[in-house]
Amino acid sequence: MDTLYLQGIGVSEGVRIAPAFIHRRKEAGGAPAPAELPGGPEAIRAELSRLGEAKRRCALQLEELAAKAAETLGEDQAGIVTGQRRLLDDPAFYPKMEAWVQEKRVPAEQAVAGIVEQVAGVFEAMSSDYMKERAADIRDIGGRLLNALAAKEDRGLSAITERVILVADDLAPSDTIQLDPERVVGLITRAGGATSHTAILARSLGIAAVVGAGSAIDGIADGDLIAVDGAAGRCIVRPSEAEAEQSRLRMEEGERERAALARYAARPAVTADGTRVELAANIGTAAEAKAAAAQGAGGVGLFRTEFLFMNAPAMPGEEEQFRAYREAAAAMDGRPVIIRTMDIGGDKALPYLDLPREDNPFLGYRAIRIGLGRQDLLKVQLRAVLRASAFGNVKVMFPMISGLQEWREAKGVLEETKEELRRSGAAFDERIEAGIMVEVPSAAVMAGAFAREVDFFSIGTNDLVQYTLAVDRMNDKVAYLYDYFHPAVLQLIRQVIEASHRAGKWTGMCGGMAGDPLAAPLLLGLGLDEWSMEAGRLGVIKKELSALDREACRSLADSVLTLDTPHAVRQAIEEFRRAIGHSL
Amino acid sequence: MDTLYLQGIGVSEGVRIAPAFIHRRKEAGGAPAPAELPGGPEAIRAELSRLGEAKRRCALQLEELAAKAAETLGEDQAGIVTGQRRLLDDPAFYPKMEAWVQEKRVPAEQAVAGIVEQVAGVFEAMSSDYMKERAADIRDIGGRLLNALAAKEDRGLSAITERVILVADDLAPSDTIQLDPERVVGLITRAGGATSHTAILARSLGIAAVVGAGSAIDGIADGDLIAVDGAAGRCIVRPSEAEAEQSRLRMEEGERERAALARYAARPAVTADGTRVELAANIGTAAEAKAAAAQGAGGVGLFRTEFLFMNAPAMPGEEEQFRAYREAAAAMDGRPVIIRTMDIGGDKALPYLDLPREDNPFLGYRAIRIGLGRQDLLKVQLRAVLRASAFGNVKVMFPMISGLQEWREAKGVLEETKEELRRSGAAFDERIEAGIMVEVPSAAVMAGAFAREVDFFSIGTNDLVQYTLAVDRMNDKVAYLYDYFHPAVLQLIRQVIEASHRAGKWTGMCGGMAGDPLAAPLLLGLGLDEWSMEAGRLGVIKKELSALDREACRSLADSVLTLDTPHAVRQAIEEFRRAIGHSL
Repeated sequence: MDTLYLQGIGVSEGVRIAPAFIHRRKEAGGAPAPAELPGGPEAIRAELSRLGEAKRRCALQLEELAAKAAETLGEDQAGIVTGQRRLLDDPAFYPKMEAWVQEKRVPAEQAVAGIVEQVAGVFEAMSSDYMKERAADIRDIGGRLLNALAAKEDRGLSAITERVILVADDLAPSDTIQLDPERVVGLITRAGGATSHTAILARSLGIAAVVGAGSAIDGIADGDLIAVDGAAGRCIVRPSEAEAEQSRLRMEEGERERAALARYAARPAVTADGTRVELAANIGTAAEAKAAAAQGAGGVGLFRTEFLFMNAPAMPGEEEQFRAYREAAAAMDGRPVIIRTMDIGGDKALPYLDLPREDNPFLGYRAIRIGLGRQDLLKVQLRAVLRASAFGNVKVMFPMISGLQEWREAKGVLEETKEELRRSGAAFDERIEAGIMVEVPSAAVMAGAFAREVDFFSIGTNDLVQYTLAVDRMNDKVAYLYDYFHPAVLQLIRQVIEASHRAGKWTGMCGGMAGDPLAAPLLLGLGLDEWSMEAGRLGVIKKELSALDREACRSLADSVLTLDTPHAVRQAIEEFRRAIGHSL
Repeated sequence: MDTLYLQGIGVSEGVRIAPAFIHRRKEAGGAPAPAELPGGPEAIRAELSRLGEAKRRCALQLEELAAKAAETLGEDQAGIVTGQRRLLDDPAFYPKMEAWVQEKRVPAEQAVAGIVEQVAGVFEAMSSDYMKERAADIRDIGGRLLNALAAKEDRGLSAITERVILVADDLAPSDTIQLDPERVVGLITRAGGATSHTAILARSLGIAAVVGAGSAIDGIADGDLIAVDGAAGRCIVRPSEAEAEQSRLRMEEGERERAALARYAARPAVTADGTRVELAANIGTAAEAKAAAAQGAGGVGLFRTEFLFMNAPAMPGEEEQFRAYREAAAAMDGRPVIIRTMDIGGDKALPYLDLPREDNPFLGYRAIRIGLGRQDLLKVQLRAVLRASAFGNVKVMFPMISGLQEWREAKGVLEETKEELRRSGAAFDERIEAGIMVEVPSAAVMAGAFAREVDFFSIGTNDLVQYTLAVDRMNDKVAYLYDYFHPAVLQLIRQVIEASHRAGKWTGMCGGMAGDPLAAPLLLGLGLDEWSMEAGRLGVIKKELSALDREACRSLADSVLTLDTPHAVRQAIEEFRRAIGHSL
């Protein structure tokens, strides 16, 4: 057959070449046709017992998966599976299936399919990608229940024994969790976007992945040789010998690079002139703190606590939060752990908080705005954070601060909470540092006034760029304007760093820019104090820093800040890196 | 009966007291129950002829209304009615009604109601207020067609001969246009929001109005005495004698104030120290230019050309645009007219442009982003603007510029268009000034670089505040954060004005802040060169300026710019105004 060229969305970089393994899952939608149970209470009792048994097996499977994930993967996966496990106990889910069997007298399969359709349909009707992915979780668990009802073991993916490129319609989180990155080296899916679970998990596992390839994947047969380029989003199915050879060379080169970077990741971050740089990791769960420490993180620059809230059917209480924060603090063993209060709202909805639907959620009721509006929730979180501070080097940080009045109010709640803990005799770090995210342009503009009151800044480039340029980076039509090398963004970053230093404070960065090697010489030159990124980026940034001289980077920053377009900025930095023999 | 206190949304200020006039309109929704026409082609022909006659009468009515509006109101009204008139000829509207009569064999009333429901339903399903109001337009025209079918004259409102407070479910634009503000002195509606047509028109007519009062209006009977406070959104139905007397006093006081302000509006804008200030008007149609000139505008600081596009069923061509721009230029008789290229997208959709649905439209594909993406449309507009520049003092301005690269591209299209006109021998002003709106924070941050290339800046505070503070001002949950007295916004404004002056250029302001007397001392002190506002605000700002000394305002600005909260800023300005005996 002819060579086939597919174009999708590249979501996890790397070039891989291997035979195709086509994976088809049983979907909740594939349930048997409607039918009624025979009369009499026995039939119903028997059906309820089948359903109960399926639920039990399903719960066991998920618990095993979660344990395995927490142990070996140390990433969001554990949280996702735990969330699915909790879903099984949600009163809006399994009990309704029982009710259908009883009231509608339908077989268990039909009750499962019906309720899954109902619940998933509600989520799918919502506009946010996050909600759509919750629907995928629900369908995944529906598929598991159906498999369990059919007494089928779901072991398709764990049966893979050779190196393959996995080809699938889409992967459920529980599928992804079974992937062994030694075997499944690449991944192509019909559906999915850059922010899907599949994409996130593939990146954390280091599997080259192209999602959203559409109906073109129907042209792939089991065993076809496929070359995947996860950066470019391109796949070559049945490549020519020359194409195959080139992909093999690029795959081997990538393997050598990864091995080299892993060696860098393990060392401290030091520049060519001997300056020690603080490199930390962004995490979403306590388990990730352990993994990040193993990958060479000097601390946690951003604990995105909203993942604790988003993967739960109800608001997690103080104890549950406390355990997570303490675990992260303990994993970092004295190194700093910066816990950001929940950054929900925007594109991160919490069904149980009943947030309003908004025309422009990124400009809406989110993050500290919710925290100050619902101080009961904020206080629970701050109590948990403060208590955890007795077990490590914990700092607290407020997101989306737009003015001094908000900061002062948040700080006031923190002080009140401390006072309550003191009265109840609970231990906490009396000198805990409190800082703010700089992600709203007004906070950057007023950095001088803030620096007199906060202990530190952390620049969130993702939102800061979004607001400074008025560009929703999730919106394909305007994504071309989204660029952290925009001179206005660079001026604001410089202003923030300088203001903090004048006041004897420090500035970190926890947005995507901190993990971009092209930005490293500039950020070093601007005097950034702490860099926080996905743990997988630590190696590449440490390597980059090892080639940089701080004084040379200062001169670079001075000259770059006079340029007037993002294009000119990129060019200048690329030229600088070429001059030191360090180009991408 | 007891006194009744209603609370709604105050959308047009003023206190008025008068008897209630209850207005009920026939709605398209109140059409007769489904029925089928008798068999035979005659019945259908007869029904089509009834429908055609109704359409003809309806068109005549609307044309009369539009003529009246253009003549006496000189506001958006004419444009709205013209838009409705065009809707009658839209291929997706009336021809479908004919098709229903023919194919479904239903009476004309049912065809009208059905199609109205279908078309309005589509608009209502959209999330933006703007779209919802388009649905109201469609329902209005449906009501007119039904009235015409019932051979009823719609003259309820023009029959009012006494001073009344009008009480209605909601007003269609064509109702509002019949309002005589000498008779209808106040207005209360069940539905509607602050951005509805009713609100806009009531403000432009000077009718005190409270909208969104809800079911409480059912407690009002025809002839009940009502006191309306259009600023507070409060109404007192059947007030006590003391309440009535107080309202009468406030109404008389308001009348005296309006008369005094009208005298100010007619004079040039001069400060206490004799400085002449450029005061201009924001307009949406050419007719408004005439009205603004009559109200004392020294030019047009912002021609919002998108209204030409939004009130049309298809993209207006070069000739239609040219006529509108030339008319505005002529009306201003040599005084400057700044034409902003279309600011569509965001909350201003154009059905015929097929814009994508966006999660965050304010951070999306809008204004110059569409202009540069659809240069065919931008060129048509620039040709019309340039040709109009031969007939007056026309300047052109690009909205939503976020970086130098966008400005240079837009300027390039302008130069190309000039070259084309030169080749075709068309007359235009070779020295036409081209400037940018400063409404994206990055443009304010980079004002120094822009000032070397643009001819002028116009600060659009509405969007600038929105992005700088990451607050959608239409979103009730976060509106408390929206404040142009936020110190970060003031710093950006100062930066822009200073950068323009260093380069020998000038800065105007066309957002809501320019029309706020509380902001006037600060803006004067910061050195703002041109102020553009709704024409109705000119009097109050001229009065404010007449009491201000420029040097004193400069000192005020210097001290205000050191403050760190919006609250402190407001207090300082209020204190300053009290000291010169000029408080609100």
